Amino acid sequence: MLESTVAAIRPLDETAMAAARELQGRLTKPAGSLGALEPLSVRLAGLAESCPPPLPGSPAVAIFAGDHGVHAQGVTPWPQEVTAQMIGNFLAGGAVVNAFARQAGASVTVVDVGVATPLSVTPADPAARAADPVAPPVLSADVVATPADPDGPRLVVANVRTGTRDMTVTAALTRDEARAAVETGIRVADELIGAGAGILLTGDMGIGNTTPAAALVAAFTGVDAAEATGRGTGVDDGTYARKVEVVRAALARHAPDPADPLGVLAAVGGLEHAALAGLILGAAARRVPVLLDGVIAVSAALAAAAFAPDAVGAMVAGHRSAEPGATAALRHLGLDPLIDLGLRLGEGTGALLALPVVTGAVRVLHEVATFDSAGVAEK
Amino acid sequence: MLESTVAAIRPLDETAMAAARELQGRLTKPAGSLGALEPLSVRLAGLAESCPPPLPGSPAVAIFAGDHGVHAQGVTPWPQEVTAQMIGNFLAGGAVVNAFARQAGASVTVVDVGVATPLSVTPADPAARAADPVAPPVLSADVVATPADPDGPRLVVANVRTGTRDMTVTAALTRDEARAAVETGIRVADELIGAGAGILLTGDMGIGNTTPAAALVAAFTGVDAAEATGRGTGVDDGTYARKVEVVRAALARHAPDPADPLGVLAAVGGLEHAALAGLILGAAARRVPVLLDGVIAVSAALAAAAFAPDAVGAMVAGHRSAEPGATAALRHLGLDPLIDLGLRLGEGTGALLALPVVTGAVRVLHEVATFDSAGVAEK
Repeated sequence: MLESTVAAIRPLDETAMAAARELQGRLTKPAGSLGALEPLSVRLAGLAESCPPPLPGSPAVAIFAGDHGVHAQGVTPWPQEVTAQMIGNFLAGGAVVNAFARQAGASVTVVDVGVATPLSVTPADPAARAADPVAPPVLSADVVATPADPDGPRLVVANVRTGTRDMTVTAALTRDEARAAVETGIRVADELIGAGAGILLTGDMGIGNTTPAAALVAAFTGVDAAEATGRGTGVDDGTYARKVEVVRAALARHAPDPADPLGVLAAVGGLEHAALAGLILGAAARRVPVLLDGVIAVSAALAAAAFAPDAVGAMVAGHRSAEPGATAALRHLGLDPLIDLGLRLGEGTGALLALPVVTGAVRVLHEVATFDSAGVAEK
Repeated sequence: MLESTVAAIRPLDETAMAAARELQGRLTKPAGSLGALEPLSVRLAGLAESCPPPLPGSPAVAIFAGDHGVHAQGVTPWPQEVTAQMIGNFLAGGAVVNAFARQAGASVTVVDVGVATPLSVTPADPAARAADPVAPPVLSADVVATPADPDGPRLVVANVRTGTRDMTVTAALTRDEARAAVETGIRVADELIGAGAGILLTGDMGIGNTTPAAALVAAFTGVDAAEATGRGTGVDDGTYARKVEVVRAALARHAPDPADPLGVLAAVGGLEHAALAGLILGAAARRVPVLLDGVIAVSAALAAAAFAPDAVGAMVAGHRSAEPGATAALRHLGLDPLIDLGLRLGEGTGALLALPVVTGAVRVLHEVATFDSAGVAEK
């Protein structure tokens, strides 16, 4: 499935992009006056192979959750159990991502791809779900638990293993485990797009997951561990220094080869990072845009781009995370973020805040009058 | 009316701000992880004098339109008639501001406060409007023309004079004309807020209006004409050099006193700039946030702050315009913009793109669970 997905990813369509550039020049506004929104609209036309591209309707946030063996190295003051507790919060609708998703009209799908703590959720009744046509789509092969509200957040249980191994001691994952997580992401993309999502948004939850993200950024971009590593949820100086050394030690131990993305993900990645890489590849293969959140997402995007360089055409950088590794990754991918407000929460919150910018960029091509049609003189 | 409005503007409420800060610290997210959204939510609590502050519902864009005698100096390649033509485009729903307003659920009110070209619009039938309870509110004292759709954009005709005088030759406005425009803006704020708007967004239309905006920025901040002046809709090098000299000459002729905002507006302002200053004052007096668009808005905001320094508490900077004068003005006001995407269109487009960020910042205080209530451990 990974190989066929990668093989399906093709470049942006030049004809549609040329049509979008030409249309932008005829709309009732000075040429270039919409700044970054104009090239964004052109890229999305190229991705959709049509001008105008479809409005990105039915946005869907996929929050991949996992735990990390490297937590044992003291890289964060938060207990590992918070990953599972926050899944409960997502399903109850109480997290920031839920508030922003409600505002944006986005669905929320939480995917347990590698949580260590047992989840206290009730499995859904498959018979009841089959009888309910408005229930969101499910990953048919997996146990799925839903909260009381069928339109509310849902949980997909696709746990590859209960957290990664400690990457300072051994590889975080086997290659087969990394592949399973990537393919889970591809399947989630397929099912969300199959159910009508016109844009996917990346989300993540995993106590300690900025540490493997930093290692991925360093491995794929070549920047030093210190440049790739940030303070995550806000660690103190001692913890930060330890975190940099942990990233440096893991890279030294495994010497991951950036031309082998599955190997990099297995050596120093996380299950949610691998699944996000798969989500991105799945979206790119279906030619649907994927709006990236923060440093976890862009570290996964580096892996996706290593699998398939043309996958970058499907990526839109939602925001510039406060994590320095995010900036290194965006530079490597050649992406400019839409929003830069110092967010460092994850969950998909930065992507959701950027969604109206993406929709607005496309809407202009659909709804704005031309100088000719509006009877407005040109300069 | 101007004096009573200014007198009603008070500082942000410290008690509500302290409550918002304390609440932010208990929500299920790392402290500070929402970046700029956290202090924004605190300011809005202070403005509303309550925590949480109300969600900024029923957003209303007010587009003030005017023409400029300084157009005769060749500061722009666009014909003056485009101001009136674009009003037709706004009322037909074909401009970028309309597309963004539809997306954001915002109403659009166009105010002719000083257009030179006669508008080809049909006066509304007052009887028909009275019979239609869903029609938007009107400025009762003015002739109001509406398009076919009562929920669509509407036009308020409150023309103080058909364009300003050429500020390189004489004062652009008399003090009475400047006051009339400011008070029109106050009345528009009062009526929009009275009809239920929870947030106002500034819009503008006026061929040539970045030239008086640059003069206002230079007059209020003290920066040089060259630093305050930009390329507007995209002028060539020769026009740009002329534009800087025009701004410099007007400032030299009038030597406006920044402590006398009505005098500054009269000497080198525009009717839409003066009205926007009034809109901002009106919002601040009613303790409703006003989301600023680009350089026209922030130059008007400087005037509003000169009338009433505490009016800054009601201002939210929507975006950083590509015009350099906008950056100088924002620095002077102490405001950080929410979006920075190189927009230079005006109309209210940048404010509309930023609106979901403002709403999201407030929504967090309403909807996100606390660590206690969600059963999530703290670090």
